[in-house]
Amino acid sequence: MKKIISQATIDRLPLYFRTLRLVEDEDMQIISSDELGRRLDITPEQIRKDLATFGQFGRKGIGYDVHELKIKIENILGLQNNWRLAIVGVGHLGGALANYVNFAPMGFSVVALFDSNASIVGSEVNGIKINAVSQLKRIVVQKAVDIGVITVPAVEAQAVADKLVAAGVKGIWNFAPIKLTVPASVPLVNEDLSVGLSALSYHMSVRS
Amino acid sequence: MKKIISQATIDRLPLYFRTLRLVEDEDMQIISSDELGRRLDITPEQIRKDLATFGQFGRKGIGYDVHELKIKIENILGLQNNWRLAIVGVGHLGGALANYVNFAPMGFSVVALFDSNASIVGSEVNGIKINAVSQLKRIVVQKAVDIGVITVPAVEAQAVADKLVAAGVKGIWNFAPIKLTVPASVPLVNEDLSVGLSALSYHMSVRS
Repeated sequence: MKKIISQATIDRLPLYFRTLRLVEDEDMQIISSDELGRRLDITPEQIRKDLATFGQFGRKGIGYDVHELKIKIENILGLQNNWRLAIVGVGHLGGALANYVNFAPMGFSVVALFDSNASIVGSEVNGIKINAVSQLKRIVVQKAVDIGVITVPAVEAQAVADKLVAAGVKGIWNFAPIKLTVPASVPLVNEDLSVGLSALSYHMSVRS
Repeated sequence: MKKIISQATIDRLPLYFRTLRLVEDEDMQIISSDELGRRLDITPEQIRKDLATFGQFGRKGIGYDVHELKIKIENILGLQNNWRLAIVGVGHLGGALANYVNFAPMGFSVVALFDSNASIVGSEVNGIKINAVSQLKRIVVQKAVDIGVITVPAVEAQAVADKLVAAGVKGIWNFAPIKLTVPASVPLVNEDLSVGLSALSYHMSVRS
């Protein structure tokens, strides 16, 4: 039985995970919350609070075992599943995601691409062939796709979500600016790049 | 004097703002927290709590004035500034951002592009010319750029941030997976697309 963790903490765990990977590559065996905080610009108190959520394994005055903590976070986030992604909609954003270098270190791999535009079906992005959306179910099953990534225009997004669910994906990552309806058994995360930019706008206007 | 609002609330405000714009286009004058929650998949309690942070202007049993609330959130987020963006690094991700359709409704406009690759300097993306990085300071001043967007590889990111700060940008939105050092007077928001994907992974593995 896993404990439910707050969204804010979940959002910080990938940052901890990536930093621990780098630190492990530097052959550090122990890291303090101060050092982790310095590298991430997060207060040590926040880090200790986040990590205490899933058990006490740091040692007071010494720090955290880098490898142990990395594996622990990997397991909490489920990254050891090495999820396989299919991207539907290979426009600018879909193409950028197909080439995004930060996925591999987290265990994510893009294994299939789909587009409804016949003029790009058959071509490749980052070595992955673009398939027609009509082939979605067959290829999702064949390539054992876990996660469907939706980067089509808003008006097409629900139909694509329905197809992905029917094909058996276990989760959906949606970039279309629309509320999708999917079964409760299929987790859905909505991404919106203007959220981060709006947060920046907030911080800029608070100061001026 | 503005009140500091929690990051989680700030991250929800752009979603409220966009929904209120849509609702206003539908000629609705009043919206309840229930209806806003239904459209966003956020609990009405959460919405009432978020909005109460910056004053009481909903009316109990009636709802919020759509236009008033929209303007209020626009002002809190500083979106009425109509910030002008320059993107440095016109690879896949920079190109996707130059074409991103969700920025304009929030008042953001991309006014300049820069790249160090001479073979693409002079060409256009979405009608905007790509300039050499050596021209950054001159063009940032000339085009009155407010926000520098960094989509170069990690090893180049700090040098680009230094150039943007020297050119006088008021904020930096960083996509490079590295911790940048900038003056405290220049707000910095780091964006990492694998965070949302990791959150999805978490929700998928909690259920399985």
